[in-house]
Amino acid sequence: MNRKMVFYMFGRIGQIAALLLLLPAVVAIIYGEYKQLWAFLITAAGAVAAGTAISLLCRTKNKVIYAKEGFAIVSLAWICMSVVGAMPFTLSGEIPSYIDAIFETVSGFTTTGASILRDVEALSYSMLFWRSFTHWVGGMGVLVFVMAIVSNMTDRSIHLMRAEMPGPTVGKLVPRGRDTAKILYLIYIVMTVVQIIMLWVGDMNLYESIVHTFGTAGTGGFGIKADSIGGYSSYSQMVIAVFMLLFGVNFNLFYLVIIGRFKSVLKSTELWTYLGIVAVAVVSITVNILPLCGGVGDAFRQAFFQTSSIMTTTGYSTVNFDLWPSFSKGILMLLMCFGACAGSTAGGLKISRVVILFKLFLGEIRRMLHPRSVSSVKFEGKAVDKQTLDSVAVYFAVYVFCIIAAFLAISFEPFGFETNFSAVLATFNNIGPGFGAVGPFGGFADYSGFSKIIFSFAMLLGRLEIFPLIIALSPSTWRKNR
Amino acid sequence: MNRKMVFYMFGRIGQIAALLLLLPAVVAIIYGEYKQLWAFLITAAGAVAAGTAISLLCRTKNKVIYAKEGFAIVSLAWICMSVVGAMPFTLSGEIPSYIDAIFETVSGFTTTGASILRDVEALSYSMLFWRSFTHWVGGMGVLVFVMAIVSNMTDRSIHLMRAEMPGPTVGKLVPRGRDTAKILYLIYIVMTVVQIIMLWVGDMNLYESIVHTFGTAGTGGFGIKADSIGGYSSYSQMVIAVFMLLFGVNFNLFYLVIIGRFKSVLKSTELWTYLGIVAVAVVSITVNILPLCGGVGDAFRQAFFQTSSIMTTTGYSTVNFDLWPSFSKGILMLLMCFGACAGSTAGGLKISRVVILFKLFLGEIRRMLHPRSVSSVKFEGKAVDKQTLDSVAVYFAVYVFCIIAAFLAISFEPFGFETNFSAVLATFNNIGPGFGAVGPFGGFADYSGFSKIIFSFAMLLGRLEIFPLIIALSPSTWRKNR
Repeated sequence: MNRKMVFYMFGRIGQIAALLLLLPAVVAIIYGEYKQLWAFLITAAGAVAAGTAISLLCRTKNKVIYAKEGFAIVSLAWICMSVVGAMPFTLSGEIPSYIDAIFETVSGFTTTGASILRDVEALSYSMLFWRSFTHWVGGMGVLVFVMAIVSNMTDRSIHLMRAEMPGPTVGKLVPRGRDTAKILYLIYIVMTVVQIIMLWVGDMNLYESIVHTFGTAGTGGFGIKADSIGGYSSYSQMVIAVFMLLFGVNFNLFYLVIIGRFKSVLKSTELWTYLGIVAVAVVSITVNILPLCGGVGDAFRQAFFQTSSIMTTTGYSTVNFDLWPSFSKGILMLLMCFGACAGSTAGGLKISRVVILFKLFLGEIRRMLHPRSVSSVKFEGKAVDKQTLDSVAVYFAVYVFCIIAAFLAISFEPFGFETNFSAVLATFNNIGPGFGAVGPFGGFADYSGFSKIIFSFAMLLGRLEIFPLIIALSPSTWRKNR
Repeated sequence: MNRKMVFYMFGRIGQIAALLLLLPAVVAIIYGEYKQLWAFLITAAGAVAAGTAISLLCRTKNKVIYAKEGFAIVSLAWICMSVVGAMPFTLSGEIPSYIDAIFETVSGFTTTGASILRDVEALSYSMLFWRSFTHWVGGMGVLVFVMAIVSNMTDRSIHLMRAEMPGPTVGKLVPRGRDTAKILYLIYIVMTVVQIIMLWVGDMNLYESIVHTFGTAGTGGFGIKADSIGGYSSYSQMVIAVFMLLFGVNFNLFYLVIIGRFKSVLKSTELWTYLGIVAVAVVSITVNILPLCGGVGDAFRQAFFQTSSIMTTTGYSTVNFDLWPSFSKGILMLLMCFGACAGSTAGGLKISRVVILFKLFLGEIRRMLHPRSVSSVKFEGKAVDKQTLDSVAVYFAVYVFCIIAAFLAISFEPFGFETNFSAVLATFNNIGPGFGAVGPFGGFADYSGFSKIIFSFAMLLGRLEIFPLIIALSPSTWRKNR
């Protein structure tokens, strides 16, 4: 393994982290929050110093990155960003415990949105801004971000994208990985700006519009109010609900729209399945919660918002859906696992995996009836190759076992089965709120430090889709000879 | 599809059901329970009349059975046995509701052991005997039983075994399917007799010994006391614990022992994994429950009994493990899903599937690091063929989705998450007791009729390993042309 290159990249990521911290520093200046400003600047200075030192020490001419290096870099990048990003919270005294700060930052970068804050409204403007900004950065991927701005990358960068981009397959839109990253970020930025403007013309001020757009774009879900989005106008709620859905769509489709290939977009199996599941869920929940609401319109709006929020693994809420009937909660729990489209900013299994699993199931029935038949699984009009099929099926098994393992690890916590189980689902799928004590109006504050570390790890595992982190943590990866 | 042959077999199974009912009828005579005797005889007469009529009407020279016919026959057989077997409970008035009786009978034949009885000790001797006897019959498989005694079967009978035997692969021990069935039943009967004798020399009378052996052999778990096995001596508890473990071993291994191939037995990956998991679970639970028990010996005995009972999906209990710490309950919940070895009488995923899934996971990591490498999964010393690997991975996905679907279907029940979820696990994995209201000292009595039907279906799905029932229920299976 090319350890020098891995550590060189690690150093560069430290520099990037420092750069990112300058944005909340500006916010701190605007709002006159000088203690917070100091915390951001100290952290940035430390990160840039350490990062530059490491990357200078580990400069190497051999810039080749293979799969192994890709997984190691991505894992280190996320851990580095979380460790650095948590500093300002603790330095400023707003989140005194560093473990809590780590949890909150990992939750931010992984676009989970789970929080240990007991009173979010007590935080300063600049800290809330930083907290939401981590969603925006994490949504597209830290490394994709690095690739888009760092110029001296090798063309092996596809190994980085593959390790960081969610979904069963990673396609390059254009021949060079770096250009793909730029196009994706351009789409991301344009959509972000449009949403900020649309929220701003409503009842949110500019600060609120930006912060909530960060949470929506990254499908994260950090808010700045105790009742999440519940206090804003129906207009703002609907804008957020629709943009959550949009950010849950595979970004490749947006690219196809831009270059005018509308037909390919309309033929996308994943898109239609995604919208179909949303439609069925919204109708079922609307009917189920009708008695609790003031009319069909109100029930529909609540069902649509919550469905969009949970399905895209964002986690914003307009009502306390923990009080809904079990049937609706059951549907939400299922959507938690499905997640939205591959290639979006959402977490979960991803719709494409769910569709492929379903087709594998149909293929298995066919095979049981006609043992000699040869069947192939088609997705998006093309036959899926054997290796991808295997990966999807195995991924699902590993996914379930990780959930069970995390659940066992925190099973000593006294919050009962529903809270513990939904807490694991909510962190591992990068959603945020669960049910019971970790419901939309609750939080993770009462969990022990040990459990918070488990949850942080679960969030990272979920965001990076398990394998990169496991590979990076295995000692054999770090052996010098390859 | 050869519908005539399917219905012919259906008729024969009706006759077999009648035959089986004669055994509890004898018990009813012994204990002078004449109302019960009448119920058994009326049911038997009805079943033999209907069965004979159907099989005479559907006599056919074309006895060919393919996969499709195999799945249809097996599914019909299990439904037929349950519908007939439930009659005596309702006719005698001991379980007035026929839906309840169906639940109890399905629970019996599928060796689940979940019960709707509020007071099991109120039932008559002959009914309790019949209830436990269904475990014994269902453990080996209704159709395997039929094959072992009906003589005019075609040699295509492997299609029946494949549909009914649990586990990812079905091997014939000897060239002819019918002979294999006979050997398996012989082993089963010998082990049953040995256990009856061992219990009889302890503090159980002959009746208790037989009834509890039926529950152990089928890994079912129906008892005759409100506290299950809790009231019997440590000796009886240990005998049952050990025999539960034995009945969870792949029966092929016993056959290998008989023909003297000890080396093959000692090389079995599945056996060692099975014993290893039991050992780890017992030690973990012993340590965890130590503060609740009177010393290490007591803690070990309770941990061993409950682990053996849950892992083999039997469901007997010596203590109310619902009161154990969450960690121990979490382990038990995991074991519920694992189940015991393939080719045993146990339910669940089966150890061989768990092992293969784990090896697929390792293979996936290897493939991610070296995309061009070709990897094969070995199990029991042989490379597992591609189709079996696919089947295992897909089976797991379908397994999880069935559990989620069943959970959603009963989610309107007011018993809370832990009870509902563990109730689904306990029925689908054919275990019996779960946690909370359906814990070892609780039951399924308070669930609605609708949920009881869902649970009955879940038990059948779990016992037949999902696919046969789905194939049998699909209309296209029943089309005349093939």
